[in-house]
Amino acid sequence: MQAMSDRRRAIGFIAVVAVVWSLSFSGKPQNNRVATTLDYDPCCGYPCGNQGVCMSFPDRSYECDCTNTGHYGANCSKAEFMTTVVKLIKPDPEYLHILLTSDLWVWKIINNIGFLQDAAMKYIFLSRGDQVDSPVRFESDHSYITLDAYYNETYYARTLPPIPEHCPTPMGVKGVKELPNLDLLMKKVFARKEFIPDPHDTNLLFQYYAQHFTHQFFRTNYTMCPQFTKGNGGVDVSNIYGLTEQHRRAIRMNSDGKLKYQVINDEHYPPYLRDVQGIEMDYPPHIPITEDNKFALGHPFFALLPGLFVFSTIWMREHNRVCDVLKNQHPDWDDERLYQTAKLIITGEVIKITIEDYVQHLSQYKVDLKFKPQVVHGTRFQFDNRINAEFNHLYHWHPLIPDGIQVEDKYYSLMDMAFSTKSVFTHGLDKFIESMATSRAGKLSHSNHPLVTLPVLKKMMENGRKLRYQGINEYRKRFALKPFKDFMDLTGDEALAKDLQELYGHVDAVEFYVGLLTEKDSPSLTPLTMVNVGGPWSVKGLIANPICSPHWWKPSTFGGDVGFDIVNSASLEKLFCNNMKSKCKNIAFKVPRGTP
Amino acid sequence: MQAMSDRRRAIGFIAVVAVVWSLSFSGKPQNNRVATTLDYDPCCGYPCGNQGVCMSFPDRSYECDCTNTGHYGANCSKAEFMTTVVKLIKPDPEYLHILLTSDLWVWKIINNIGFLQDAAMKYIFLSRGDQVDSPVRFESDHSYITLDAYYNETYYARTLPPIPEHCPTPMGVKGVKELPNLDLLMKKVFARKEFIPDPHDTNLLFQYYAQHFTHQFFRTNYTMCPQFTKGNGGVDVSNIYGLTEQHRRAIRMNSDGKLKYQVINDEHYPPYLRDVQGIEMDYPPHIPITEDNKFALGHPFFALLPGLFVFSTIWMREHNRVCDVLKNQHPDWDDERLYQTAKLIITGEVIKITIEDYVQHLSQYKVDLKFKPQVVHGTRFQFDNRINAEFNHLYHWHPLIPDGIQVEDKYYSLMDMAFSTKSVFTHGLDKFIESMATSRAGKLSHSNHPLVTLPVLKKMMENGRKLRYQGINEYRKRFALKPFKDFMDLTGDEALAKDLQELYGHVDAVEFYVGLLTEKDSPSLTPLTMVNVGGPWSVKGLIANPICSPHWWKPSTFGGDVGFDIVNSASLEKLFCNNMKSKCKNIAFKVPRGTP
Repeated sequence: MQAMSDRRRAIGFIAVVAVVWSLSFSGKPQNNRVATTLDYDPCCGYPCGNQGVCMSFPDRSYECDCTNTGHYGANCSKAEFMTTVVKLIKPDPEYLHILLTSDLWVWKIINNIGFLQDAAMKYIFLSRGDQVDSPVRFESDHSYITLDAYYNETYYARTLPPIPEHCPTPMGVKGVKELPNLDLLMKKVFARKEFIPDPHDTNLLFQYYAQHFTHQFFRTNYTMCPQFTKGNGGVDVSNIYGLTEQHRRAIRMNSDGKLKYQVINDEHYPPYLRDVQGIEMDYPPHIPITEDNKFALGHPFFALLPGLFVFSTIWMREHNRVCDVLKNQHPDWDDERLYQTAKLIITGEVIKITIEDYVQHLSQYKVDLKFKPQVVHGTRFQFDNRINAEFNHLYHWHPLIPDGIQVEDKYYSLMDMAFSTKSVFTHGLDKFIESMATSRAGKLSHSNHPLVTLPVLKKMMENGRKLRYQGINEYRKRFALKPFKDFMDLTGDEALAKDLQELYGHVDAVEFYVGLLTEKDSPSLTPLTMVNVGGPWSVKGLIANPICSPHWWKPSTFGGDVGFDIVNSASLEKLFCNNMKSKCKNIAFKVPRGTP
Repeated sequence: MQAMSDRRRAIGFIAVVAVVWSLSFSGKPQNNRVATTLDYDPCCGYPCGNQGVCMSFPDRSYECDCTNTGHYGANCSKAEFMTTVVKLIKPDPEYLHILLTSDLWVWKIINNIGFLQDAAMKYIFLSRGDQVDSPVRFESDHSYITLDAYYNETYYARTLPPIPEHCPTPMGVKGVKELPNLDLLMKKVFARKEFIPDPHDTNLLFQYYAQHFTHQFFRTNYTMCPQFTKGNGGVDVSNIYGLTEQHRRAIRMNSDGKLKYQVINDEHYPPYLRDVQGIEMDYPPHIPITEDNKFALGHPFFALLPGLFVFSTIWMREHNRVCDVLKNQHPDWDDERLYQTAKLIITGEVIKITIEDYVQHLSQYKVDLKFKPQVVHGTRFQFDNRINAEFNHLYHWHPLIPDGIQVEDKYYSLMDMAFSTKSVFTHGLDKFIESMATSRAGKLSHSNHPLVTLPVLKKMMENGRKLRYQGINEYRKRFALKPFKDFMDLTGDEALAKDLQELYGHVDAVEFYVGLLTEKDSPSLTPLTMVNVGGPWSVKGLIANPICSPHWWKPSTFGGDVGFDIVNSASLEKLFCNNMKSKCKNIAFKVPRGTP
């Protein structure tokens, strides 16, 4: 009887497998031509779901190529069997985001048990990585795949190709016939009426970290067009060391692996520009700046703002500190090997701090983010990255900038600080850092853009139109988020919804950046779309770094165990505490408790 | 009783697992400092096995970093448990090579059953891919990891770093104190005494295919140093279309997506250089060449040899033929889209023909090689590639070149054909192709280098010394082959072994290229090391192409099913038959049966 029932169970199981298999087989992608009665290119309406590729024909019919999308059907809208299973298991991204940012006991368990933590990080790294094309498919000059998107690395990558040129409306088929006037948009949507502080207590160390970190890979080549970059594909630490070999050589001390420095008030600072040959810094020609205020840094514009100068100084000191540690371990190493190895350690520190301090604060996740690249070794994760034009566009975070900053007894407005590092020397580096740590940054939302940088925003919106970015809802779909149904669904705010309705006519026509900033609040520092679209680009860029790959991620790459330990124990706090004269305090990405 | 014995078995099983687990745990990499009494840097002797990384200290001790090598112990010589298991299952590479090149019934089965064939290709693509650093770790200016190896793409990659500068002998610690005189080496080892034809009936279509194909990515930047390249990381079809955008623009017709052509004797040929603005071809200034003999091709030196000119002409015709097919499908597409999509199809054809015709013949494998990139989708395979300096070095295959070629009733010596395409027009393209197909190429071995190109070989050996390539045995070890024990083990030839013994003193000191060419024969076109070292670089370069990746490998990338079918059904024979005036015959990489 037992054997009989076992056999029946086995037959039942085989039957289920067979049905499932045949179902999944009937779901194999088939390209079906769809006829339409439209009087325009049907691909302008983005009919293909789930990243299916639309191809239209002169008779106004179209085909969706659903290959490798896990979907089938004329519009790639039907899920294959395995996709359905995965969808059943996988939580909805909006719900997951609420879970991740809620104080749940499950995070406490995961945060404290090694293998669960590894599993969580593996899931985060892989699921984020899967959402980024690698190799890249698109650039800004074609609305279809070209070899150039991959081989011409002077292009920024594109996650979604440009809106085709010949569509009925600027954003495709929906919305207004002419995009809103930019000055009106600035005024109605972006301009700060009154400073709105970030509700998560974010401080100016965070704001300047964001700017200092991202400008190593956001390097638009404006002598060409905004679709081109002068930079590399990720965390190349060129913001600290220089982008070109000539620049890198110029700021090296050529002994003990160190970067050039000078002593001012008994402290180490970057050298004056006049003392360094062969590099140029971006000082605006019409502003009078004395030679004592011009410095030679790794990045040509980092001496224009005191906060960026602070980070440049701290990283220069950290590099030189690491060189001393390495030389102590390897007294036989020459300048070149000390320099190159310290640079690898600094790269590791940058990634560690960015994940564990910066992204942790930005996301407000309650699960502890850990820099453990080994969890993706041997998986499908691709250790290569390119910067997407849309990532650069998204990362215009001027709302973080307050109207001014109080340092000791002196208040500096934004313009007081521009083009000068003087304030750092007036108060001393440590006092300036203390002010950055205790001053509130602005909320990353609409109606909070500082008035003095509105021209930057306007220029960037112009570029966005030139590059023909698709609307916010197409990006939502691309990153597995449900498109906004209407303006209230987007904003959660009646007045703003009404304004946007007037400006755009249809929520599908809302421009990418406008949608990112007008979305209702989320538990993170930014609205949800910004987290779930920017997150994949960010995580991919960090973990795809070569140092994270199996042949690199080992002690010898970093000069042995001592160097590897520096990477694996790096933190924002240590970075500052190891490189400040006074006792460091309040080093974090949020203002201390009790700050007004 | 039954239950009792089951329980015992279960306990036994658990005990075995526990022992295995504890063994594997005790095998976790540990870096142990090893003291030595040497009077030189102990890393010069490459003490770390299995790709362990050697790091030495001023007291002449050293450490091997075995992380991620699957091995442990002071010299990374002990296999971890899983490595042992894999080694037990995995056949020895030399034995596998004999199997793969033998007529066995098992290949007939695999060749005829789809899923077995897929499994075989997956194994080949993954196992070859695993042997190539991706991301790259080394370049030629440092004997240790640097960020520049990855970010500075003007470097050729390096599979093994250069021999350190301060070692007791030129090749490390073994062999002669001074490397053999190059002229002596040319004379004793390389120079052709009498033409040795390839025993596998290889013809000149093969020889010229090799040269035409590889020069899209072997583009040493000689205005700098031999460690730098002007090229990209793989099959970018720049040999057909041009490396720079200016070059590409210059040879485009700007209508229907086509490349420029002219009609000579009722056939399509590339345009004269004088009819094309903005490009330069590499015509040597001291050779008088009439304007009617100067052509504008995708690659600046491809008009210097008639065989390369033939392939350039055929690919130009194929591109234009594909444009016609695409235009027929998509009459609404503009010139740009037809051009870009045809280029993607040509890329697919190149890879297909290279794997299924060229590598198939080169390897003499009896298992059918198939271009099926989908088998590695979702695996650890990395879709990114860089060209290794050693790959370029290895690919100096001049022994293939015969002393001359008979075309109809005329015999051309090598020098008769250099710098001129005249012979192609004298006989007509089809007659010239017939001669290439029916003329024997030389055997890829020592003592078969044509005398007129010996200066090229000498220069390349000089560069190899400048770049400090490690010896043949270090490359054998790097690619999981046992090092040669002595000169007889290398050559299988007493006279040659004696010569090499005198020249190098120790088999570990034999230079890379010398070892590649003096190795005993194998069933492939080249000796075994060449296959098993060059193979991974080649396979990785072909399958890591962006078109092979999951988001690219679909019909829409190639303009729909018709374009995708062109890729998936491409062959050497079709390439020629579709683009020759006369009925094509004997198109293959070997001379027809019965050729003397």
